[in-house]
Amino acid sequence: MTATRRAAGRPPGDSGTREAIGEAARAQFAEHGYHGATIRGIAAAAQVDPALVHHYYGTKEALFAAAMRLPVVPSEVLTAALTAAGTAGGGPDGAAVGPGFGAHLVRTALRLWESDELKETFLGLLRSAVTSEQASVMLREFISDSILGTVARVAGLGRQWSPAEAEYRAAMVATQMLGLALTRLVLGLPAVAGASVDELAATVGPSVERYLGGDIDLPVRMSRSRRR
Amino acid sequence: MTATRRAAGRPPGDSGTREAIGEAARAQFAEHGYHGATIRGIAAAAQVDPALVHHYYGTKEALFAAAMRLPVVPSEVLTAALTAAGTAGGGPDGAAVGPGFGAHLVRTALRLWESDELKETFLGLLRSAVTSEQASVMLREFISDSILGTVARVAGLGRQWSPAEAEYRAAMVATQMLGLALTRLVLGLPAVAGASVDELAATVGPSVERYLGGDIDLPVRMSRSRRR
Repeated sequence: MTATRRAAGRPPGDSGTREAIGEAARAQFAEHGYHGATIRGIAAAAQVDPALVHHYYGTKEALFAAAMRLPVVPSEVLTAALTAAGTAGGGPDGAAVGPGFGAHLVRTALRLWESDELKETFLGLLRSAVTSEQASVMLREFISDSILGTVARVAGLGRQWSPAEAEYRAAMVATQMLGLALTRLVLGLPAVAGASVDELAATVGPSVERYLGGDIDLPVRMSRSRRR
Repeated sequence: MTATRRAAGRPPGDSGTREAIGEAARAQFAEHGYHGATIRGIAAAAQVDPALVHHYYGTKEALFAAAMRLPVVPSEVLTAALTAAGTAGGGPDGAAVGPGFGAHLVRTALRLWESDELKETFLGLLRSAVTSEQASVMLREFISDSILGTVARVAGLGRQWSPAEAEYRAAMVATQMLGLALTRLVLGLPAVAGASVDELAATVGPSVERYLGGDIDLPVRMSRSRRR
């Protein structure tokens, strides 16, 4: 309610407004998860108009990225990098994923995770997800919605497979990619930490490609719903 | 030194001795890592004879398992389960790993991790490794020495490949397996957490098998040292 706003309410130009929205977003994402938090709810908590949230941050994902202090919006960087490679949508026989897409995905993710801007934040997210149920829910929902959704879209999984199968395939990619992050960046297993990004991309890429575009054994309920 | 032992020293039958050794082991593993801690050093810290440590716990790994409150000795369970499947050492053309070994490895690990006895301990280890540098070193060394060593031995990697390549292949298996643990047990990604053990084994198994026995792109320094 306007009447309850602090002082005379926040004018759109107020330099503290942007920050107040960020604060409110952090709290709302933590409390309600990535799914549950809404632009409307965050605006209410920050005592501003929802339009102002959109004005300052754009999408819900961009607001989440800002609230988590990520220096980039993951899905944007991912989309740009994967599209630039020219291996998406270029598979033979109408396959959505062309040769080399898996290696490119591994390379893109590792470079992003190991970049100066992102490394500490990424490790912090991973740590909090492993130790706090609340953070785990938030990261799970963010990965499911934003990251896996982006991979599925760029890889064109929806053109080839049912939504359930596309989700399963993208999740399989996550098992491999997050395991790479855990063993390389957190545990530092010598053989993984000692390999170069290109070497890992070459070894692991085909596994990722198999999950995205290859012939894999699926849960029975999905095989029944295949599109091809 | 015997002279410095507490009171008149601990007689072998003392019910507190076993516990004191366990306490000392926990502290020594945490301080020196899995590599650095020695039976001799643990015995000294517990003020007992090293022979008594062997008497109560057997191997260093068994002592570590007890100190970490693991209900089983991982490499023993792993060896028994993998050997029983009859898919180790049964590959065509002299390959060390026969068809189905990957799926069996996935099934074995998931069942172990999700067992009532082990689940909480396993999650606890994973959590502490992600949040504490000390615990991370300990878990890394334990995984490298004991778990990956066991997988490499049972899968007969040494028969086929150089030590460096065997280590790299086993580590690639770890990237996939620990990612499965992270996404299923910690994050609870719906598509991973909702699938059955058998379904995941069928989907992920071939990736694991590829790392263990398949034709993969290796770091150049390893390709040069290949045995075959």
